[in-house]
Amino acid sequence: MQDLESLSASQAIRALTRREIKATDLLLACLDRIGQRENTIRAWTSLGKENALMRAKELDKGAIKGLLHGLPIGVKDLYETYDLPTSYGSPIYTNHYPSTDAVSIALIRQAGGIVLGKTATTEFANFKSGPTANPHNPKHTPGGSSSGSAAAVADWMVPLATGSQTAGSIIRPASFCGVVGYKPSLGKISTAGVKSLSQAMDTMGCFARTIGDVALGVAAMSGDHELANIQDLHNKPRLAICKTINWASAHTETTAALALARYAAEAIAKGSVGEFMLPKSFDEITQIQSRIMSFEMSRSLAFERIHFPKKLSALLTKQLHSGDTISYVQYEKDLLRTHELRSQIAQIFRDEVDVFIAPSAIGEAPASKESTGDPIFCRGWTLLGLPCINLNITTGPLGLPVGIQLIAGPGKDHLLLSIARAFAYSLPDPVTRDQA
Amino acid sequence: MQDLESLSASQAIRALTRREIKATDLLLACLDRIGQRENTIRAWTSLGKENALMRAKELDKGAIKGLLHGLPIGVKDLYETYDLPTSYGSPIYTNHYPSTDAVSIALIRQAGGIVLGKTATTEFANFKSGPTANPHNPKHTPGGSSSGSAAAVADWMVPLATGSQTAGSIIRPASFCGVVGYKPSLGKISTAGVKSLSQAMDTMGCFARTIGDVALGVAAMSGDHELANIQDLHNKPRLAICKTINWASAHTETTAALALARYAAEAIAKGSVGEFMLPKSFDEITQIQSRIMSFEMSRSLAFERIHFPKKLSALLTKQLHSGDTISYVQYEKDLLRTHELRSQIAQIFRDEVDVFIAPSAIGEAPASKESTGDPIFCRGWTLLGLPCINLNITTGPLGLPVGIQLIAGPGKDHLLLSIARAFAYSLPDPVTRDQA
Repeated sequence: MQDLESLSASQAIRALTRREIKATDLLLACLDRIGQRENTIRAWTSLGKENALMRAKELDKGAIKGLLHGLPIGVKDLYETYDLPTSYGSPIYTNHYPSTDAVSIALIRQAGGIVLGKTATTEFANFKSGPTANPHNPKHTPGGSSSGSAAAVADWMVPLATGSQTAGSIIRPASFCGVVGYKPSLGKISTAGVKSLSQAMDTMGCFARTIGDVALGVAAMSGDHELANIQDLHNKPRLAICKTINWASAHTETTAALALARYAAEAIAKGSVGEFMLPKSFDEITQIQSRIMSFEMSRSLAFERIHFPKKLSALLTKQLHSGDTISYVQYEKDLLRTHELRSQIAQIFRDEVDVFIAPSAIGEAPASKESTGDPIFCRGWTLLGLPCINLNITTGPLGLPVGIQLIAGPGKDHLLLSIARAFAYSLPDPVTRDQA
Repeated sequence: MQDLESLSASQAIRALTRREIKATDLLLACLDRIGQRENTIRAWTSLGKENALMRAKELDKGAIKGLLHGLPIGVKDLYETYDLPTSYGSPIYTNHYPSTDAVSIALIRQAGGIVLGKTATTEFANFKSGPTANPHNPKHTPGGSSSGSAAAVADWMVPLATGSQTAGSIIRPASFCGVVGYKPSLGKISTAGVKSLSQAMDTMGCFARTIGDVALGVAAMSGDHELANIQDLHNKPRLAICKTINWASAHTETTAALALARYAAEAIAKGSVGEFMLPKSFDEITQIQSRIMSFEMSRSLAFERIHFPKKLSALLTKQLHSGDTISYVQYEKDLLRTHELRSQIAQIFRDEVDVFIAPSAIGEAPASKESTGDPIFCRGWTLLGLPCINLNITTGPLGLPVGIQLIAGPGKDHLLLSIARAFAYSLPDPVTRDQA
């Protein structure tokens, strides 16, 4: 038998529910791995070892609780937890203990998941880096803002971890760390109890090492338990490459990743897969996303701006000031435009395509821990509220992972997962096949 | 000069910014009124007298802070506040002090508003009554769930108070208490830091005694400061009576209220005002709203259900169980339907009408403090995300207030306020004229 910490979430849960392994042993294996690696990776802001062990023992003795029975889970420190401190990546909230769990975390626990600890996020899920290193090369960023979750999963510390995305905070770190990242449709998972940046766009999701695993995570967090039963594809899916208007920013490794993805796509579609150009009306989605986020964030953090202005980083303060300069009229115009574009993209997905294949990031993780990389290839999809999955597909010139993202129509999460699993099976790399 | 506590918010702010009155004196006048009446009305769960007085003194000495400079405000106890306990109407959260303010409350304070205290809500903004009495007859309910806010404003304790609506929790208590209640368009005000019941429908808003006052409140809470400048109507508005499919439930006083509203409407429209029948596709909006709310609530309260099942009332527990019986497939179907109906109603408002005139409630406030009344005339509009304003229009057989609601298209809050002000001027009753 392989080491317990290297089991996928689905493998582990199968073994746990058959009582072939113990939740306690799985947890200890994860803690052991964390003990070995945390000095280098710095993925965690706190560990709830005692509570987690107590819970694991209860689950080992008691009835099967649910979808995530006995599985250790990392929780991005943007999510509130009643038994572990929640800092939102800000020194303002050092030693802050909320009274309740975020709704999605309560649902994870209800499904038998064990919160092992909190994972590092950037300051209020923005762009100021946290302490976390990329497991593939500690001198590089793991991406952000869900830095700790992506790194912990990539480094075999935990099989499943939660994330959130307002610009590109799930897909980008998943690509940089070589794991599966799943941002479901907007609204699929409650945002209650997760620090709010943008009411219009904040989306909860998760990281794991396989498609089945992220499906399990979002199934539990959303209450859509059927999502965990990924259906086989019965019809040939309509696939298309969508390079987007930002394609000129892509590095050569991203070009290569997209070419590899096209081979896989053609194997699945049993025919050639073409490129899809979004209509001109979508040309500004990146800018619209950016403006809405800035505008909403400058208001969402009003409390912190009033009471703790000096504890906000210079980078964030600058961002907030830039949000202040956007007028409400501009904001309303952008929201209206978003609404129209969401209808239009839904129509495109109904009539023309099931899944787009698109870049996840510009390229490999930048060689710096000062920047978490550019979310330019994610902003628009987040604005549109579409479900996205990052799949690791190749490595770049520095040997770091490079992913692509699959994007489906609004609410088409089941279809997205089916196609993503077919992709994982069709890829040349055995590691990637493991992502099914 | 009239007593300070009887000034409207707009009158008070005008006097405050001209330094004709002091924030301290206004606050003391409100506290005095509360002292006289609170034993009967029981609108408040806590008062922050010391902090409020300190803040008032600062504002009296300092520069003009913003839209709400020096105005005492009541905050529904569903909103988190860093300096006052937040119970969400549940014994689970007795003496619960959150670390931050809800986003909209931080924005109120940023605009110079003074949080005077927290107002009573029903248990987690549901149907189990709180302690509050209707100021017009203490044996009757003030409505719910924003019971304390509506009663405090009606009883001249405070000129402005926040509310929230998922089914009918602003419009219904406003009607029962004879004040103006304004539920703006869905998404206009951040829900962050307000206990979440339904991600799909929770909407923040406020109560006051005039149209100008609720405009001020929502302007500050949303950051859309232009909303406070209500524009005159330049074109004849397209008005229509919309009795809705639930019309058979209306009591005679509601029939009378709608007839009076029609006179006012015809004066404004300078011509006859007809009835509008919603297309058959809208027949089920009340049921859809109810199912989505039940489904989402049974998940939103997961933490409380796991940790404090015995501290939830029998009534709420029953509701939560009923939510558990709704399948995710049904929920998704209902959400999809909602999405379609929202597009359809937007089209109707574009092509055919500016404002609907509709019942706010079945009739007068029921003669009981056990029930907060039926939200049947509000559920559908809330589901559709439309901005609604309750205007007091007449009294029923028991001498209690009866309102009507004006409803505009999604995002048409400016237009709604203009028309509502024209209504208030056109009504026969001088008290109601005061609502302009």
